[in-house]
Amino acid sequence: MKRDVVNFNAGPAGLPSPALERAAKELLDIEGTGMSIMEHSHREKTYEKIHAEAKNLVRELMGVPDTHDVLLLQGGASGMFATVPMNFLAKGKSADYVNTGAWSEKAYKEAKFFGEPRIAGTGYVNEKPVHIPKQSELDLKSDAAYVHLTSNNTIEGTQFRDFPDTGAVPLIADMSSDIMSRPVDVKKFAMIYAGAQKNLGPSGVVLVVASKALIESGAKNIPTIFRFKTAAENDSLYNTPPTFGIYIMRNVLLWAKELGGMTAMGKRNQEKAAELYSAIDNSNGYYRCPVEVDARSEMNIVWRLPSEELEKKFAAEADAAGLVGLKGHRSVGGMRASCYNAVSLDGVKRLTTLMKAFKEKNG
Amino acid sequence: MKRDVVNFNAGPAGLPSPALERAAKELLDIEGTGMSIMEHSHREKTYEKIHAEAKNLVRELMGVPDTHDVLLLQGGASGMFATVPMNFLAKGKSADYVNTGAWSEKAYKEAKFFGEPRIAGTGYVNEKPVHIPKQSELDLKSDAAYVHLTSNNTIEGTQFRDFPDTGAVPLIADMSSDIMSRPVDVKKFAMIYAGAQKNLGPSGVVLVVASKALIESGAKNIPTIFRFKTAAENDSLYNTPPTFGIYIMRNVLLWAKELGGMTAMGKRNQEKAAELYSAIDNSNGYYRCPVEVDARSEMNIVWRLPSEELEKKFAAEADAAGLVGLKGHRSVGGMRASCYNAVSLDGVKRLTTLMKAFKEKNG
Repeated sequence: MKRDVVNFNAGPAGLPSPALERAAKELLDIEGTGMSIMEHSHREKTYEKIHAEAKNLVRELMGVPDTHDVLLLQGGASGMFATVPMNFLAKGKSADYVNTGAWSEKAYKEAKFFGEPRIAGTGYVNEKPVHIPKQSELDLKSDAAYVHLTSNNTIEGTQFRDFPDTGAVPLIADMSSDIMSRPVDVKKFAMIYAGAQKNLGPSGVVLVVASKALIESGAKNIPTIFRFKTAAENDSLYNTPPTFGIYIMRNVLLWAKELGGMTAMGKRNQEKAAELYSAIDNSNGYYRCPVEVDARSEMNIVWRLPSEELEKKFAAEADAAGLVGLKGHRSVGGMRASCYNAVSLDGVKRLTTLMKAFKEKNG
Repeated sequence: MKRDVVNFNAGPAGLPSPALERAAKELLDIEGTGMSIMEHSHREKTYEKIHAEAKNLVRELMGVPDTHDVLLLQGGASGMFATVPMNFLAKGKSADYVNTGAWSEKAYKEAKFFGEPRIAGTGYVNEKPVHIPKQSELDLKSDAAYVHLTSNNTIEGTQFRDFPDTGAVPLIADMSSDIMSRPVDVKKFAMIYAGAQKNLGPSGVVLVVASKALIESGAKNIPTIFRFKTAAENDSLYNTPPTFGIYIMRNVLLWAKELGGMTAMGKRNQEKAAELYSAIDNSNGYYRCPVEVDARSEMNIVWRLPSEELEKKFAAEADAAGLVGLKGHRSVGGMRASCYNAVSLDGVKRLTTLMKAFKEKNG
């Protein structure tokens, strides 16, 4: 078994080895029960303990206030694009969507099935998604059902550093690609949601942190399974949760806690991003990040080379050197290094070392 | 590591050891990639191969005709209770629901959010869910959008042996608790769906086998993620699938194939059920199965003891003997042995041996 690659995949993405090592060891027999965690009932104590621990770790690490619930649901962000407006947007009502990229736009489009969403701000400058709008650039309405934004744009490589003040209007954020990558003031948000498959665990789990008031306000005339209230009232055990995914998430969160929690994680991610952006910025224009400097993501770092041919060559050499997943999203091309929590600074340094050598040879 | 328990859990349930052993071995490094299958992109070849293999194994083992698609979705049956009528039932239209137990009823209730479902048949006799209605007992309407039934009733311990002929009306079956436990003539069904966590893998995956015509007929004005057509057109890769769950399912299906496919599986399950029912029937009434003989499930076998006190004692002794998960569902009490595919005949014999000894001592 060799785990000497650096996994820059955009998601599903690399997970911390200790979380997986524990899973491998326990996979056929957890806690001497003679069964895999996958084989345990979600209504018996072996799983229940893990379920509670995962929720408590989210609460502790994110600093979730008592006003908010922590839900662990099946699915991913694409499902949330539908269930958020299904719960909180009604026919004839509007919601303000900030459009900073492909995922924001998908969320906006799905809201149209339920009400009249508006685009209340844009990350596009000359049709290029290189910007993060400031509060002053947003056109927010006080009668909007909510404001929806994407905190980090996985494809475009942009990220909100500060979040807008939306006053009495609930702020809802899709944090799929930067959840728990840094300290965030949860009480500013009525809802934070995130597919697990970047920073938290395997695909198939959605973490939702939402104010009890927002959850309570959700529509009643929609299917039971899609009401956030159903999950909140049943401790996320109304239906069978994705037990194995939540188990891995628990392992990942224990690792995050050991590392020092969100303050340490934020510092680690800042250092990784600084290392990579400085390799780009100090290349005399050989490497070029298309994103505005103050919109740069610490999670998904995108850059171009002088030609597509060189990009292809770079990707191949990186791959051969065990640096995996560096091709940009098929819709935009170029290079992308997704530096999620599990990627180490040493891993990023292996990439910047290659970048320097590649420029020497091909510059 | 000891796996000497017999796992009679109702779901999540026991999985075949070879499927888990392979997963444990590959958990940190699959095929020399240096990454866990959980860490691979769903759009790269390592995962894509597994995804295709899982779908092909379903097709091969179930004998799915070319008229039908195989979909691998996130979620479970509770989500399907909503998305089936969301796709196929419109305001003012009716659908015929056969009510054979708690899960049938949940499916029926969710359909009310979308149209006018009718109860077209019942498994209740004197308010007890002990029966499976015959074709002649069903009150089916030719203008129903579809007929929905639950092939196996996990809580009540009843199972359809033959399926009704619904003519031109699409037949939709929730097979969550007996999927791939026996040969089934797929072309009789417009749709079969099943949460994975009984016979197929961990919770969080839904298998859908559905006719292309039914899928095509689904509503267009519903969220993209909830249209079965979206999954069908995108090879179940519109959004990130639950990759690890599908990987385990692939392992489980390889085991089922090695065992001899559905004919062998059906025979194995018949033998297991015969062993347990005969222990009940030959106990001179000490053990008593409340279900009508020709409605008896081969998957979830329920029985009572002379008193609740004895049931408690039996459960405790079984637990001490490594026979796990035998308590009946909290809503009905009594005993229940869920004898899903992974449970062996030897495992069931350990239970019947205990039953005989227990009766000797306490009868």
